[in-house]
Amino acid sequence: MNAKDAARLLLEKDNILLLTHKNPDGDTIGSASALCAALRRRGKTVWLYPNRQASTKLARWCECYFAPDDFKPEYTVAVDVADEKLFALGFEGRADFCIDHHPTNTHYARRELILADRSSCGEIVLDVIKALCAKPNREEANLLYIALSTDTGCFQYSNVNARSFRAAAELAEAGAELQPLNLSFFRKVSDARIRLEGMLYNSMSFHNGGRVVVATVTREMMQAAGATEDDCDDLAGLPGRAESGELTLLIREQADGSSKVSVRSLPGISSSAVCAAFGGGGHAQAAGCTIAETPERAKEMLLAVVDEVLR
Amino acid sequence: MNAKDAARLLLEKDNILLLTHKNPDGDTIGSASALCAALRRRGKTVWLYPNRQASTKLARWCECYFAPDDFKPEYTVAVDVADEKLFALGFEGRADFCIDHHPTNTHYARRELILADRSSCGEIVLDVIKALCAKPNREEANLLYIALSTDTGCFQYSNVNARSFRAAAELAEAGAELQPLNLSFFRKVSDARIRLEGMLYNSMSFHNGGRVVVATVTREMMQAAGATEDDCDDLAGLPGRAESGELTLLIREQADGSSKVSVRSLPGISSSAVCAAFGGGGHAQAAGCTIAETPERAKEMLLAVVDEVLR
Repeated sequence: MNAKDAARLLLEKDNILLLTHKNPDGDTIGSASALCAALRRRGKTVWLYPNRQASTKLARWCECYFAPDDFKPEYTVAVDVADEKLFALGFEGRADFCIDHHPTNTHYARRELILADRSSCGEIVLDVIKALCAKPNREEANLLYIALSTDTGCFQYSNVNARSFRAAAELAEAGAELQPLNLSFFRKVSDARIRLEGMLYNSMSFHNGGRVVVATVTREMMQAAGATEDDCDDLAGLPGRAESGELTLLIREQADGSSKVSVRSLPGISSSAVCAAFGGGGHAQAAGCTIAETPERAKEMLLAVVDEVLR
Repeated sequence: MNAKDAARLLLEKDNILLLTHKNPDGDTIGSASALCAALRRRGKTVWLYPNRQASTKLARWCECYFAPDDFKPEYTVAVDVADEKLFALGFEGRADFCIDHHPTNTHYARRELILADRSSCGEIVLDVIKALCAKPNREEANLLYIALSTDTGCFQYSNVNARSFRAAAELAEAGAELQPLNLSFFRKVSDARIRLEGMLYNSMSFHNGGRVVVATVTREMMQAAGATEDDCDDLAGLPGRAESGELTLLIREQADGSSKVSVRSLPGISSSAVCAAFGGGGHAQAAGCTIAETPERAKEMLLAVVDEVLR
């Protein structure tokens, strides 16, 4: 199936519910909202499942598409959802169609358009919208720019390719408001977040000749910064900005006093090996675990294991 | 004149010296080096003026093109240089040709290709290289990607448009190594810089209901972070990340104990009005001044003036 087939399929249906994934990011929200808007331009009744986990920043863009309580969907489309376990409760086995770019997609839907070479699902939805309506309108272009830019770290991640840039060019031409979107999603952070970043950087210690960088965020720091969970997006990526860092650890003190650990590493160094020692897991370059100890004690224990892993 | 005319003109010349601007950035260095490499592919003898002000990061890319002492140029081309005052000493009045994108270009060269709607000079040089050699090779693509990405803040500044994204797509297709370049120019910072950022964020204070943000960098902080001038690129932009900030001040203690002040503001608030009160100046949204007082005292004095300006 290609984008044109997908458009044709969707035009045959009505009363469509679009599903986004748990802990929604800019790609699932932006892609689903843009598709919703474009299908409405083609006269369809279509809504988003009201994903209440959307951050305040994303909610502003998608809430207007959230289905009312009395909406009775006849056709269900998952957008940017790799696995049906990532649906809200009650939707397992109910996806009629899936549009996704994750190579790990579990093929749970009856029909699917999965293009794993696309950096974001937004790029696929862009092609579907072009098949539906010739080109995206400004609102759809903004939503797809959110999808594309957030899933590529504003064109900095390793998934970016020529096609991503061409999609961005098309969205710019379709009226995407690049400057306010970039300010909102990449430049500006809450005052609490910026205070917390200061504390996090100040907490950083360098080990093994700088190759290992450890940062800590305690409950006391959260309180002093006035920070909430909303301010903690991708904190685990920050210690990795340090040039010397090859393996970086972020230790976050939990409400019960235990330590949640996020590990990131360069290729050739196993983050999951570090976390496996504490019953955790993940990928080679990004893994996590929880240690039932204070951050200071957890740090000592982690550094001992890191020594082994680096050896 | 267009890119094809420029290519034709350059092919008529030989023993070409390419000039970059003082305090060189990625655009002048990347554009000039790429043009140098492409002209060599067409059999020309061509070198860059050895701009010793290039940062360590940029020097790695351009030093191999620096002219030897005994090079006798017959034709001089300025790349990304808005004004001949921005040349190294001795080149005023000697530019035969100028390739630039600055709307403020003073038209000092005998011939010129100036396209002020391009986000970077690299985009113009890309077109010239396409006219010279059909397409950039990998080295040229890397150099032009440095030019384009640094001049657009990795596609985040207000100068980005559809054309910038299309140029990036062409460079990606020509083999530009996006991921290591993005890591080097946008993601990674020195360990000293990241420590200094932590101290800077921790020094921040919020005034006038958060509209005014002040950060301080003292000599003691520089020393504690192990930071040098190389680590201080665009520190003045950091307090402006705070969401509430409309007017932000960075106060840097100088070697003589005085305070160098950088002011940034949103449209509608005059940075230069703040600085004018201390004998400084600049633009409406970015200005500077020096105050012969300690940072603490300078901060008090500045906040008093800011109150007036905001009123």
